[in-house]
Amino acid sequence: MTDPSTTHRVWRVGADIDTDALAPGAYMKFGIDEIARHCLQRVRPEFAAQARPGDVLVAGPNFGIGSSREQAAAALVRLGIAAVVAPSFNGLYFRNAFNVGLLLLTCAQAETLAEGERITLDPAAGRIGRVQGEPAELHCDAVPGFLLEMVQAGGLLNVLKQRKSH
Amino acid sequence: MTDPSTTHRVWRVGADIDTDALAPGAYMKFGIDEIARHCLQRVRPEFAAQARPGDVLVAGPNFGIGSSREQAAAALVRLGIAAVVAPSFNGLYFRNAFNVGLLLLTCAQAETLAEGERITLDPAAGRIGRVQGEPAELHCDAVPGFLLEMVQAGGLLNVLKQRKSH
Repeated sequence: MTDPSTTHRVWRVGADIDTDALAPGAYMKFGIDEIARHCLQRVRPEFAAQARPGDVLVAGPNFGIGSSREQAAAALVRLGIAAVVAPSFNGLYFRNAFNVGLLLLTCAQAETLAEGERITLDPAAGRIGRVQGEPAELHCDAVPGFLLEMVQAGGLLNVLKQRKSH
Repeated sequence: MTDPSTTHRVWRVGADIDTDALAPGAYMKFGIDEIARHCLQRVRPEFAAQARPGDVLVAGPNFGIGSSREQAAAALVRLGIAAVVAPSFNGLYFRNAFNVGLLLLTCAQAETLAEGERITLDPAAGRIGRVQGEPAELHCDAVPGFLLEMVQAGGLLNVLKQRKSH
């Protein structure tokens, strides 16, 4: 999913996306499949049905504010979202996201990306490439190896399991 | 350190405090004691010498941006800083901080706190109390138990060691 040659389609949302928009409280008791079906319905009602594995969510600052519910990150993993790109993330959301295997890219210029455009991701190098559009490359915070390992393994628990079995 | 009856003195800094301000690159090779002696010298030259254990650092948005160096959090632990309070933190800094036992409180109204005032902290409840000043209480994101456990143990490694010994 983080192969720098793969292109990803961009979904755009605004600033201050909270965990209740990502994992609506009304569906919390029905499990992650049902929560994922309603992910972001308040701001992008078509998102959950139309997002395809490998798509990327691009947001404004303060992504993931609100409660500490892990489902707000797990719902995006369930939908196959390859990464969330935003200028800033809520700290606890950032922690939860990698723990459940969701890649987050902190990118000051995130909001210059447009709905529907295609991008490439090189999280280890801290680069986002644009298939079209200027500038052709955006910088983001490089993601350290131990966090990429969590994304590739599908979350922290899987990393720990893999280590135990060695 | 997070006893809600303890009062803490506030040190104020601005927005976008980066990891190089917290752990200056020039001292990185000299170990954490020396790094801590130069912590924030670019923005508050007197801080490292005058800060006392239990003091709290209050900042503007985007605290901890820049590199992923853990020393940027460990230096504040070394100085005995009880918490950093800010409207937002860099995601990786947030992760590193709790891993090394530094309490971070995400508080939208952080910047209403004044240099030198005294506050109380109730991270589990998400409350910051003011000895003087209005409003008498600020809300912050409640800190989940597993993160408070890391702070109390002095970091993630100590938590893991304690669990192993049980």
